[in-house]
Amino acid sequence: MTTKRKAICLISGGLDSATMLAIAKEQGFDVFAMTFDYGQRHGIEVKKAAIVAQQLQVFEHRNVKIDLGAFGGSSLTSGMPVPKNRSSAEMDSGIPSTYVPARNTIFLSFALAWAEVIGANDIFIGVNALDYTGYPDCRPEYIAAFQAMARLATKAGVEGTELTIHTPLINLTKTQIIARGLELGVDYSETNTCYSPTIDGLACGFCDACQIRLSGFEENSVEDPVKYEVCV
Amino acid sequence: MTTKRKAICLISGGLDSATMLAIAKEQGFDVFAMTFDYGQRHGIEVKKAAIVAQQLQVFEHRNVKIDLGAFGGSSLTSGMPVPKNRSSAEMDSGIPSTYVPARNTIFLSFALAWAEVIGANDIFIGVNALDYTGYPDCRPEYIAAFQAMARLATKAGVEGTELTIHTPLINLTKTQIIARGLELGVDYSETNTCYSPTIDGLACGFCDACQIRLSGFEENSVEDPVKYEVCV
Repeated sequence: MTTKRKAICLISGGLDSATMLAIAKEQGFDVFAMTFDYGQRHGIEVKKAAIVAQQLQVFEHRNVKIDLGAFGGSSLTSGMPVPKNRSSAEMDSGIPSTYVPARNTIFLSFALAWAEVIGANDIFIGVNALDYTGYPDCRPEYIAAFQAMARLATKAGVEGTELTIHTPLINLTKTQIIARGLELGVDYSETNTCYSPTIDGLACGFCDACQIRLSGFEENSVEDPVKYEVCV
Repeated sequence: MTTKRKAICLISGGLDSATMLAIAKEQGFDVFAMTFDYGQRHGIEVKKAAIVAQQLQVFEHRNVKIDLGAFGGSSLTSGMPVPKNRSSAEMDSGIPSTYVPARNTIFLSFALAWAEVIGANDIFIGVNALDYTGYPDCRPEYIAAFQAMARLATKAGVEGTELTIHTPLINLTKTQIIARGLELGVDYSETNTCYSPTIDGLACGFCDACQIRLSGFEENSVEDPVKYEVCV
């Protein structure tokens, strides 16, 4: 049994959630990590999440299989092409096809269920409002509304215990996130960011996510330790 | 293609959601029904939901398999005993063991995802604040908070389309729900309410849900058309 405060951390195997997990540990929480296998085309995420969870010594790690692919509606879960080589201006315009309908709402709902069962009052999610301006469920007002709903949704809420949704990365740039992670000793070589990796797990280097990641490392004057399909 | 307004209806195979579905149809919606196979002990629910969906001629019906049982925490998804023969006073005191952590939040989140994909702005859920006073996620303030969150969570919200969570049963007694359903011609013989049915699908007659259902029919002076394990 843990005697420290428990927190649920949603981790994807990506750079952001690995950094967020390190921040939760630094804040003194015992981490209960949760990863979703949701029909995403890049199943490598799930494997990377397990490695990150082990490296950062979480208390427990659970994989939850859910079939978001059954609904379609996103290039990450259906046959739609993942956009590549877009300019910053194109990335900033509108909601990208990589947006998965209601994904964060579903993820946070499962986190809420597990939090209730284990008696945790803290949930961490690595959303970021700056680099993903087009995702409605990465905005601070959305997170605040989810927290307000969550406080009414459970036994703990009825009994007066207040649940908190932590979003330590929400106002950081990718460059700042990487700087914070390097400071905390996060091993980024075992994270996947690419929306369209090869079957061997190599990143493409050209999708929106790869482009943002690469410029984040460049601005930190640090070489990205992951392997890319071609020289980038 | 449907030209009518589309609504997602969450149906469980129970009496309440069958009535709610008939109300959604009466209001002129084309119904996209969604049922969850969530590790509940009474799998008969899922079969009954398919029959109800067919009887009430929904546009489409989807089953979503999710593993809430993995978290435990409820007598409906774990080895905990289902309480029987409780008095009204006992049913009114506190949150019952049949409460499933964050269940309605998870269900509504999946409904939100499907709504976004098919372009529906209406979701119906058969929650009831009177007969299930102990369930935090059946209260009107919870539903209002979910709706506020949902309006910020999706593309439609960003584009200014407002999603509505409909709860036509929220302030009705079980007697009033049954009266409304009988008026709309709902065939209650193919609904399951029991928390602890036999393997052949017979209702126990003694769990909280059976007791409330039976008194609802009695107050309507109508015989409950489902079969019970013993004479009740």
